[in-house]
Amino acid sequence: MGENENMASLSLDQHRAAVEALLAPLSLVRVTESISLSAARIAGAPDVYRHRVLAEDIASPTDLPPFDNSQMDGYAVRSAELAGATPDAAVRLRVDPQINAGDSISELEPGTAAPIMTGAPLPTGADAVVPIERAIPDHFRSTGDAEDSAALTVDFTAVPHSDEFVRRRGSDVARGELLLTAGSALGPAQLGVIAATGLTKIDVLRRIRVLLVATGHEIREPGTPLRPGQIYDSNSAVLSQALIECGCTVVAWPCRSDDAADLLHIIEKGAPTADLVITVGGVSAGAREVVRDALGPLGVEFSHVAMQPGGPQGLGLVEAPGHPDGIPVVTFPGNPVSALVSFEIFVRPILRRLAGFARTERETLRLPLAVAVESPAGKHQVRRASIDPDGRVRLVGGPSSHLLHSYAASTALVHLPVGLGHADAGDPVDVWRIDD
Amino acid sequence: MGENENMASLSLDQHRAAVEALLAPLSLVRVTESISLSAARIAGAPDVYRHRVLAEDIASPTDLPPFDNSQMDGYAVRSAELAGATPDAAVRLRVDPQINAGDSISELEPGTAAPIMTGAPLPTGADAVVPIERAIPDHFRSTGDAEDSAALTVDFTAVPHSDEFVRRRGSDVARGELLLTAGSALGPAQLGVIAATGLTKIDVLRRIRVLLVATGHEIREPGTPLRPGQIYDSNSAVLSQALIECGCTVVAWPCRSDDAADLLHIIEKGAPTADLVITVGGVSAGAREVVRDALGPLGVEFSHVAMQPGGPQGLGLVEAPGHPDGIPVVTFPGNPVSALVSFEIFVRPILRRLAGFARTERETLRLPLAVAVESPAGKHQVRRASIDPDGRVRLVGGPSSHLLHSYAASTALVHLPVGLGHADAGDPVDVWRIDD
Repeated sequence: MGENENMASLSLDQHRAAVEALLAPLSLVRVTESISLSAARIAGAPDVYRHRVLAEDIASPTDLPPFDNSQMDGYAVRSAELAGATPDAAVRLRVDPQINAGDSISELEPGTAAPIMTGAPLPTGADAVVPIERAIPDHFRSTGDAEDSAALTVDFTAVPHSDEFVRRRGSDVARGELLLTAGSALGPAQLGVIAATGLTKIDVLRRIRVLLVATGHEIREPGTPLRPGQIYDSNSAVLSQALIECGCTVVAWPCRSDDAADLLHIIEKGAPTADLVITVGGVSAGAREVVRDALGPLGVEFSHVAMQPGGPQGLGLVEAPGHPDGIPVVTFPGNPVSALVSFEIFVRPILRRLAGFARTERETLRLPLAVAVESPAGKHQVRRASIDPDGRVRLVGGPSSHLLHSYAASTALVHLPVGLGHADAGDPVDVWRIDD
Repeated sequence: MGENENMASLSLDQHRAAVEALLAPLSLVRVTESISLSAARIAGAPDVYRHRVLAEDIASPTDLPPFDNSQMDGYAVRSAELAGATPDAAVRLRVDPQINAGDSISELEPGTAAPIMTGAPLPTGADAVVPIERAIPDHFRSTGDAEDSAALTVDFTAVPHSDEFVRRRGSDVARGELLLTAGSALGPAQLGVIAATGLTKIDVLRRIRVLLVATGHEIREPGTPLRPGQIYDSNSAVLSQALIECGCTVVAWPCRSDDAADLLHIIEKGAPTADLVITVGGVSAGAREVVRDALGPLGVEFSHVAMQPGGPQGLGLVEAPGHPDGIPVVTFPGNPVSALVSFEIFVRPILRRLAGFARTERETLRLPLAVAVESPAGKHQVRRASIDPDGRVRLVGGPSSHLLHSYAASTALVHLPVGLGHADAGDPVDVWRIDD
């Protein structure tokens, strides 16, 4: 799990391209699943809708809006009947019964204007709405008035054009037109327009399912007793959350042993319901490296990437139940900082693209260093940092890959590329924001 | 629900400040709740951990790392014993039994070097680790070799400094030190460092609980039959998802009636388990406006904000069971585009700040318009748009607030401020990215 170096070396870009090639087929084999859609379910089971992507184009099953309706509170009129209306020569119409949102579609009698509320159906015969504030009087009179509503009149001092303040049936989307395209991420507006059509079931892409295997004879489940020399498994929590935030589902199945047979058992049992295996630890130059021992003979290739942390990396296709062409396996080093940096650089952008995120890469800023820094010139070093109020980037903790506490206090990653051995305070560096 | 205008007018900033003041107390009354923490739960119940914020500082219950351990695969040594080692004058030590990660803490006998794996406990007496590739030979020999392991030796050609490649106990965080501060958002590194200490229960802020009441005689649940003049309720889906994405919990309880008593019943029943009520619809100039009719007499103030869409707005504190000082109520207009734009501008940044998001505001770009646009100079107009590959912003659909389909096809909102009546193609405008 360490940063030892006596193996073939790759550049960061070379390994990233290799992971990309390994995972590319995941976009081709995506299974569709139906989810039912209701506001109660969105509110009550929000995880069902988190980071979802439409599997297929949806054609609208209905016109939206489904009927001509009023854009304003006002009067539905025949615009031709107001021809010639001016402030000096108002046109007077009798007031029809009021049309409320939710009423069925009525008929506008000639010579009348119907009080109409926003969203209420335009009566047959009407072709325009005059907003209440442009009518005389400029307020609605209750039918409970002493006056008989049939005797009410309203004056208009301008001619509306036809369709004015009318939302025509199908003007947002017509029945049969494309409502949403395959690949659309489902946010508020997308879920809303589906609801507006009345659809209650949609086909979405099944999430990428990851079998996450933290390894090591020394790791124990938090909350259980530790003997000296043992540590709590933090990688399962770190990477479960990181994967969830990429729209994946995760089975976290640690291998608390250095026995290759135990790891192979986990992969055999977990592979049928997984699309991807990520292992953590057991890939370094040590004498007992469970991932290397178990998966090297099955075709996983291990190499050293010229980066720090996260040097020891591996990948390959492993024959497994349910995967006739092999299941993709990506292996990370075991220090939690190394594992999370590896995930950030090699896997996160790919999984987010597969999940349909618009933003697959971290926001990158170019910021001056608050303090000078040394970096191994032969490696791409990634440091944890925060951003000062004045916009300088300040390293948090040292380069060592066990400093997860420092990582947790950071809001940024600083990239010190190959060839950079020293940078002064004030020198600009590439910074990824990781605080969203 | 319309855009009529005969009421008191506020600027966008004035109303935003009023909503901010109304919701400010929500940050003071936040209830703490315990959640249990395990990788299995993160993977199996991810919604529990979505957008969570620590309620209290956590002091580390343990040193991290919990014991001195090796940063490398190599040999644990007493650095003083290698004094004088050079390539020409190697120092030879006997090889001790190998120390693996997970082994208990052993003792390094004088005159020996112990093969040690990354993460394995440093033996008592050792003060440095020499990486395997700097030893001679530069690989570990199996104890299964023909040679007796007790007879093995290893040569060193350089003097390590004390502590070299050793991770000292407590060097990431010491027992009793601050592990995470109250208000920390819980992402992968934060959940991981908690797991590393063995903690399995943490106190987090309870989510802001929103009672969401879409109103209108005309709205029906998607999937049920519609009579002419009725529409499906899209606002409940739109705003449920928008609220979930701000870290809230939501009870979506539509009021499919224009009867004030029905709305008051919902608020009375829903208020005891809510921190905030958001209503949609029923706030305009119409003759039957359920929200205005029900809540106006209880102190909610309605006004017209000089923006389009989203003009008719309201807010206030309403006496309700469980809320001796009143529950905050924010009322949006009923067109789905108006409701979602209102949410974006007036509520989303506040809820995200309360939820502990680092990014509370939408990313704002200044981009040239692809096509000329007209805007009512007296209002702040918000239009839906997409961003062309060349970086120009292109409006999607018209300004009308019923065009939810256009909203769903958009990735940006364009702001056309008060005073701007016309902008030409190429003119720069403020653009919010809404595609994340």
